[in-house]
Amino acid sequence: MIKVSVIGSGNVAQHLIQAFSKTDDLELVQVFSRNPKSVSTTLATAKIISDFNDLKTVDLIIIAVTDNAIVEVSKQLPFQNQLVVHTSGNLAMESLNDKNRKGVFYPLQTFTKSKEIDFTTIPICLEAQNESDFKTLEMVASSVSDSVSRINSKQRKALHVAAVFVSNFTNHLYQIGFDICKENDLSFDILKPLIQETASKIKKLLPSEAQTGPAKRKDTQTINEHLSFLTNENQKEIYKLLTKSIIDNGKKL
Amino acid sequence: MIKVSVIGSGNVAQHLIQAFSKTDDLELVQVFSRNPKSVSTTLATAKIISDFNDLKTVDLIIIAVTDNAIVEVSKQLPFQNQLVVHTSGNLAMESLNDKNRKGVFYPLQTFTKSKEIDFTTIPICLEAQNESDFKTLEMVASSVSDSVSRINSKQRKALHVAAVFVSNFTNHLYQIGFDICKENDLSFDILKPLIQETASKIKKLLPSEAQTGPAKRKDTQTINEHLSFLTNENQKEIYKLLTKSIIDNGKKL
Repeated sequence: MIKVSVIGSGNVAQHLIQAFSKTDDLELVQVFSRNPKSVSTTLATAKIISDFNDLKTVDLIIIAVTDNAIVEVSKQLPFQNQLVVHTSGNLAMESLNDKNRKGVFYPLQTFTKSKEIDFTTIPICLEAQNESDFKTLEMVASSVSDSVSRINSKQRKALHVAAVFVSNFTNHLYQIGFDICKENDLSFDILKPLIQETASKIKKLLPSEAQTGPAKRKDTQTINEHLSFLTNENQKEIYKLLTKSIIDNGKKL
Repeated sequence: MIKVSVIGSGNVAQHLIQAFSKTDDLELVQVFSRNPKSVSTTLATAKIISDFNDLKTVDLIIIAVTDNAIVEVSKQLPFQNQLVVHTSGNLAMESLNDKNRKGVFYPLQTFTKSKEIDFTTIPICLEAQNESDFKTLEMVASSVSDSVSRINSKQRKALHVAAVFVSNFTNHLYQIGFDICKENDLSFDILKPLIQETASKIKKLLPSEAQTGPAKRKDTQTINEHLSFLTNENQKEIYKLLTKSIIDNGKKL
């Protein structure tokens, strides 16, 4: 059975640990955490370590820490020629320390500690320096997810940027919707079915097919009325830029 | 039983007609359509008319046509002192012709002809000039939806603007994600679970609690790397503006 250890105790690490605990296809050997309490509920205490020198030899070490800490953690590992991967969407595989074999194990999802998630639906993007290591990663990823892809570092960066648009920026648009509701004594709940349907449409339709609204219709009267209604300069600016982008996009089609 | 007729055959009209056909709480008397073929599949031919003079007296006339045509249609109706409503999120109730009693019946949702939708989950925003007409609208709305609210014209405009942000603009961010995938030989499918989860989080969490990403973390290194990665000036500009907005929003909290 493939032996895996995880370094980290943040959102990604916690969700990985939970997913690994549920499968019989691999053995989760150890979890390194500078803050053992944060992982203790999901794991036997004996498996939790906080000293790199206690790390046992395994088939795969997954560094699931913030981007800024990955280079340093990979340097501190007390062994060499092991398969070591990070979980970052943004960092190149090459950033890992040269003393070990490198790879990437990037689950493309937005993780929130308080919210459970079905790991089997999460796309896992894999990269490795050689085919045998790639096979190991593929086996580990397939044991927890139904969607496993080979993605090189440049493509992974593209996905990470795209994810910022479709997830982080989208959530900020929800924030603006929330703010507009609040200013007008309206419950944000009234927008929630619309938010769900907008996401649901994209399962089957292309974004170009799903696009609706005044910008798509080039309905300048409604656009101008909306701009007069908005008093917040920042909201106005975002409205103008995204409206222009939708209109320009329509011209390309 | 309340008698209702619908004017129009676009997305909103079609979905309303379908919903009304399914309930036994009201009688759908007639549908006016300049293009009878577009509604004929869902309705008995005898009910479809294309001459305003054929309209029978009913309890409620719903004008479900594009914003630009509402004023003219309400003027052409061959009767007076009837309850006449429009379905627009943007137009004031007062825009309807003065010869009839006015109201608004605004279903807050994004409708696509090719996609069925559970009407019971759609919030319906109602407005009327008097309480007795409001009760009629409330009965009609409640017969097809579980979410019925009293919303005045200013609040409705706010909702319409908010809907542009959370739905039309969000879909455009999906479009940008799609474009970035295409440019990098990636399937857009890989972003779909993230899109669904981003929408799903908002059911339980506030947008401020659900916000993640480099802007939220003020991770300027990743932000700069993303900006260097993007070559499309329009995408760059949207990235900058939304990133700034997330950072500024964080300062307010």
